[in-house]
Amino acid sequence: MPLREKELIAGLRRMAASKPRRGIATGIGDDCAVLQIPSGHEALITTDFSLEGVHFRCDWHPPESIGHRCLARGLSDIAAMGGEPIAFFLSLALPRALPQFWVNRFMRGMLKLAEKHRATLAGGDTAESPGGILADIVVVGSVPKGKAILRSGARPGDGIYISGQLGGSAAAVQRMQAGPDRKLSGKKLPGKKLETRLYPDHFYPEPRIKLGKILREKRLATAMIDTSDGLSTDLAHICEESGVGAELEATLIPRSSVGNPSRAVELELALHGGEDYELLFTAPKGKRIPAQIAGTPITQIGRITDQKAIYLKVENGLRPLKARGWEHFRN
Amino acid sequence: MPLREKELIAGLRRMAASKPRRGIATGIGDDCAVLQIPSGHEALITTDFSLEGVHFRCDWHPPESIGHRCLARGLSDIAAMGGEPIAFFLSLALPRALPQFWVNRFMRGMLKLAEKHRATLAGGDTAESPGGILADIVVVGSVPKGKAILRSGARPGDGIYISGQLGGSAAAVQRMQAGPDRKLSGKKLPGKKLETRLYPDHFYPEPRIKLGKILREKRLATAMIDTSDGLSTDLAHICEESGVGAELEATLIPRSSVGNPSRAVELELALHGGEDYELLFTAPKGKRIPAQIAGTPITQIGRITDQKAIYLKVENGLRPLKARGWEHFRN
Repeated sequence: MPLREKELIAGLRRMAASKPRRGIATGIGDDCAVLQIPSGHEALITTDFSLEGVHFRCDWHPPESIGHRCLARGLSDIAAMGGEPIAFFLSLALPRALPQFWVNRFMRGMLKLAEKHRATLAGGDTAESPGGILADIVVVGSVPKGKAILRSGARPGDGIYISGQLGGSAAAVQRMQAGPDRKLSGKKLPGKKLETRLYPDHFYPEPRIKLGKILREKRLATAMIDTSDGLSTDLAHICEESGVGAELEATLIPRSSVGNPSRAVELELALHGGEDYELLFTAPKGKRIPAQIAGTPITQIGRITDQKAIYLKVENGLRPLKARGWEHFRN
Repeated sequence: MPLREKELIAGLRRMAASKPRRGIATGIGDDCAVLQIPSGHEALITTDFSLEGVHFRCDWHPPESIGHRCLARGLSDIAAMGGEPIAFFLSLALPRALPQFWVNRFMRGMLKLAEKHRATLAGGDTAESPGGILADIVVVGSVPKGKAILRSGARPGDGIYISGQLGGSAAAVQRMQAGPDRKLSGKKLPGKKLETRLYPDHFYPEPRIKLGKILREKRLATAMIDTSDGLSTDLAHICEESGVGAELEATLIPRSSVGNPSRAVELELALHGGEDYELLFTAPKGKRIPAQIAGTPITQIGRITDQKAIYLKVENGLRPLKARGWEHFRN
């Protein structure tokens, strides 16, 4: 093992050892981690890549934000099942020239979010990267047996609900890509660095663990997904898995306000922009859904139909809503 | 989602759907996989990178071998705990130009091994790679509660045992790197492509799942690890975690025979070469260990001491055995 990897593992081990170890029988330092899934529960497992140049850029994202966003992707998947996180695993390949303080700041951002949600770093892998920073996050959680909220449970007549606001993360990407410098010179420039505090949805998205758990405990949701790919795509996933269609109302879709002065994002960004990590769920018609759960506003934005297609209600009628995939920074 | 990823996921889903689904409540197609860990068992989790240029080279390894080796790394970690695999997750980032038949052959190699060990593909992630083929494998298994065989259980006086033979994988790497062409021209050439059937230890290593399970069930092993980093390094891991030392006998170390004509590898390769995926374990003095378990020969190669150092007994006495890390193809 090269010295760099040895140091990295030793550091991770020190960091992991200082955290609570709920559910961890054996953590970093053996061939496998040994986890205790609570009795009567099932294990939830999700894996997510975070690749430099695809999911983040070092000239745009502070290391703490990159670490936070890596883990937030996985925690948000646990939230979308109504589960609770137990442990996470980090596979990290780093270019030889990357300074150690970058790694320290990256880990700080990741572990701060982990601590908040009581997820313990329990293992992973390290390697020297052949090109760019490569991270793969695995999050393991649990949910009472048979109670996970799947994508496949939506039924015609169900209301469609969204937590928080949409489009804030994509708006940040759009502004970084556009950047005023680029317009002035006419050349392709690296874009604009943003003040992270003005775009928290993008730099420090909050996985909705508590909300997901409450929706599961109170049996409010029939189907659920997190908005990692964007509303239009994620709603299409629910419709496909449930064998149903949907109708959204454009005016009801809650749009994020970002920047300074703070302004609501365009409808298109709220419809198609990804990585907001809000929860999109359906609930039976007539079920009373509170306007706020666990401090997060909940908005009804439409309803499930039996048409096998998705429509958006706008001023002058219905228009088909195409699922436009969110492709991170590839344009 | 780009078309390529969509196709890949659809293909993986078809392949996964045709396999037995023991322990899988929800597989590919939701935010998380939902797994059932058998009652009275703990979950085992391991993650392993396989990166082009670091762990494999496309000009040396057929795609089937790369897929097999990716998964074998993870299964071997489950074996080293005395566990049984349930499911695996594949995160795969591919360069845009990679032909689809490469991916199909890669998956075929991986799924053939998975089927043999009854591990179900239950999820993962896909992305376009910023450079080279990047795979990260997660394997989930289970073991009866408190019965996982850890690295930390070795005690002075225990015998040290190894399954199979060592050095065969490293011998293949050495021969590919050296290659006769390279010697002739004096230039750095891509090395030599080998006939895979003459070097099975390297191209199609067999994870010792059955052996690990029997050692656990019969309570034969006090500590265990798989030889992924090489005997000298992996024995050092056991010694470090157990707070003990060790003495090996050079003449007892079983060396692989490879190539045509088939010849035993040099002692140095058996001592330090990695990726053989044999099981290295310790057992109490006086415990009868069969010469063969689950069809695999077992050899005693030394004993655990209380000296906190590792020695190798050679013809003219003892010499310290340094843990020389296995660095894949980096020289």
